[in-house]
Amino acid sequence: MINILAEIITIGDEILYGQIVDTNSKWISAELDKAGIKVLRKTTVGDTEEEIIGALKEAEKRVEIILITGGLGPTNDDLTKPVLTKYFNTKLVMNADALANLQSIYDTLGKDITDLNRKQAELPESCKMIPNKVGSASGMWFDKGNSTFVSMPGVPYEMKTMMTSEIVPLLRKKYKTPFIYHKLVKTVGIGESDLATLIKKWEKNLPEHIKLAYLPSLAQVKLRLTSFGKDKNSLIKEVDNQINLLKPIAGKFIYGYDKDELAEIVGQMLKSTNQNIAVAESCTGGYISHLITSIPGSSAYFRGGITPYQNDIKINMLHVNSETIFEHGAVSEETVTEMAENVRKLYHTDFGLATSGIAGPSGATPEKPVGMIWIAIADGKKTKTKLLQLWKDRDMNIKTTAIALLNLMRRRLLENN
Amino acid sequence: MINILAEIITIGDEILYGQIVDTNSKWISAELDKAGIKVLRKTTVGDTEEEIIGALKEAEKRVEIILITGGLGPTNDDLTKPVLTKYFNTKLVMNADALANLQSIYDTLGKDITDLNRKQAELPESCKMIPNKVGSASGMWFDKGNSTFVSMPGVPYEMKTMMTSEIVPLLRKKYKTPFIYHKLVKTVGIGESDLATLIKKWEKNLPEHIKLAYLPSLAQVKLRLTSFGKDKNSLIKEVDNQINLLKPIAGKFIYGYDKDELAEIVGQMLKSTNQNIAVAESCTGGYISHLITSIPGSSAYFRGGITPYQNDIKINMLHVNSETIFEHGAVSEETVTEMAENVRKLYHTDFGLATSGIAGPSGATPEKPVGMIWIAIADGKKTKTKLLQLWKDRDMNIKTTAIALLNLMRRRLLENN
Repeated sequence: MINILAEIITIGDEILYGQIVDTNSKWISAELDKAGIKVLRKTTVGDTEEEIIGALKEAEKRVEIILITGGLGPTNDDLTKPVLTKYFNTKLVMNADALANLQSIYDTLGKDITDLNRKQAELPESCKMIPNKVGSASGMWFDKGNSTFVSMPGVPYEMKTMMTSEIVPLLRKKYKTPFIYHKLVKTVGIGESDLATLIKKWEKNLPEHIKLAYLPSLAQVKLRLTSFGKDKNSLIKEVDNQINLLKPIAGKFIYGYDKDELAEIVGQMLKSTNQNIAVAESCTGGYISHLITSIPGSSAYFRGGITPYQNDIKINMLHVNSETIFEHGAVSEETVTEMAENVRKLYHTDFGLATSGIAGPSGATPEKPVGMIWIAIADGKKTKTKLLQLWKDRDMNIKTTAIALLNLMRRRLLENN
Repeated sequence: MINILAEIITIGDEILYGQIVDTNSKWISAELDKAGIKVLRKTTVGDTEEEIIGALKEAEKRVEIILITGGLGPTNDDLTKPVLTKYFNTKLVMNADALANLQSIYDTLGKDITDLNRKQAELPESCKMIPNKVGSASGMWFDKGNSTFVSMPGVPYEMKTMMTSEIVPLLRKKYKTPFIYHKLVKTVGIGESDLATLIKKWEKNLPEHIKLAYLPSLAQVKLRLTSFGKDKNSLIKEVDNQINLLKPIAGKFIYGYDKDELAEIVGQMLKSTNQNIAVAESCTGGYISHLITSIPGSSAYFRGGITPYQNDIKINMLHVNSETIFEHGAVSEETVTEMAENVRKLYHTDFGLATSGIAGPSGATPEKPVGMIWIAIADGKKTKTKLLQLWKDRDMNIKTTAIALLNLMRRRLLENN
């Protein structure tokens, strides 16, 4: 359904040397996709006139829209502006709007503009100036028949602000692109192939103009529904209707939508029910407390954590019975149960959460292999435990355990409602 | 000095849609750079024959070496193999080595090979098979005069193993590339411009064939020294000599080299001196414990942590004097000092580390703005404290505080030696 084609040209030696990952072009791709514009190709070239001109010429033959990032700073090694001036056979002139923008930035900083800085306000005469609300380098828009060339700064924050507020609306207007509506459905606690089997019939019955993509990541699978059309409201309604049909089938695995994060959703559930938690972490070593406290406002429901990495700390600080550890080991259902119950009591919370396991690579025994991890949640009445059998990799084990415990908490909070 | 040119072609609709970041091409660029091969361009195209053929034709005109990743799976939408077969005007034949590799993988899994899987062992007749030691899709190497085309799987682990063990050595041999020696010098506790000023004279005196690059990241700056030449041992010696000249100037900021991580270096220093630590984290919420425990073997020196996120937990669990908090507040030199001293006593460690501050975005007062953070280290004799004035961003404040505290610990351990 998309027939407006675009190419993204990224300029920068540092990308070709492998010093930085080009995350800009991923972000631009996703924005164009949402706007109904298909990215046909991405090209990265270095800071040389020959390479930039070559890439522009080739792209012009292939696509209608050419988006260029990088090479717009004030120093001599930034080539994009002189090269575009040459490519469009025009000349650099002082742009009054760009100069006013520059002046206001330097006024705020309480500094005078130097001649080198002032040159940033010179733009090719034939271009339309795209304002930069958060930086000094203006964007440039060139119309050439039905083709459009847009040059943007490489600084991600400046480029994103310019794309969202100026460039995407202008492109949508010029090319009368269809409206595209994306909705992410975020699931946890089920693998990609099991999820695909579970929702097979629903997927088959999706209308042809709603596309489904599976986007798996560590211990989570996102479903992306995409719909194209002319009427925004009917598209949104249609996609929401399909999600309503999905809920009776896979609802218990769905924790949120779009930008929702699991730790944030669990936090909202705790906050809205006036409940709070504390976490005792052995093998996860503080990572779950970190995930929870990375959410602004988490002090409303998180009273604190403890990481008793050694057995005597489990005994002295968390009051785990030494006989429990002696008889069953630190990695056992019995120990993780006491950890969860005791952190709940010591921190005076509604729920106590705990982890204990072999994150690896060392510490395994024949009975307790790397990746054997116990998790638990105590609520004062009963304590729910779960045994995870994970991988060989320490980092993956820590992160997967965190997601499993947060999901166990989410499921526990759903029971209350 | 580099005159062998390469282009990286990445194949995959998911990259053009903006669903994933292409991290493969960054890694490949850095490997080629190390091997003395210059990446002239990177191109990403979708899963269509026309686009792939177009990209191959254009690249062949520009460069000697064309490295292709992606599109090598067993399913129908993976096009690279049939397209290469067509491009080189050859045919698919069963490759005995590839089949043997596939057989051994399925034997390990205890599964039978299906016909669909068996097709993975069919390769273009004119290519040299590149073994895949960690997966089922073989690599393909095509010689065409002085040009080389190499096709690799898109799965990062498989691609990296194949590049390192097979492809880079073969390319170095075919193109007789110069030896390139890179060394990263990792610094902490000094900003990029201050570091540049400090080492200005040293930098100016570097021999012309040793290049210096500043690679800044959050609260750290890496210096990369690069040297080209024919004799590996003399290159290494020369770079090491320059680093020896750098040490008297900037040594106290240098914590390691190449792949060293700060938490790992601090851990090694503790382990080698038979000392251990415990951490009490308020504003960092468990992140420092997580960083420390992400290092395998950290249980040798990390006895545990505590995250007393509320004042009463600081008082009851960590025995901070309630009057201290009442008089000076939780974010104060007095409170962070007691936190560090008490976690040391309670966990029976050589050092107690602590953080308390306003991570933001909420919680600030006129006297205590967002980004005001205290850190402390207690050793039983005296307690060293430091006030940080950081940024508006919660995530950056947490991560910068962690680096600052680990660096304070590193500097403290250096005093002992």
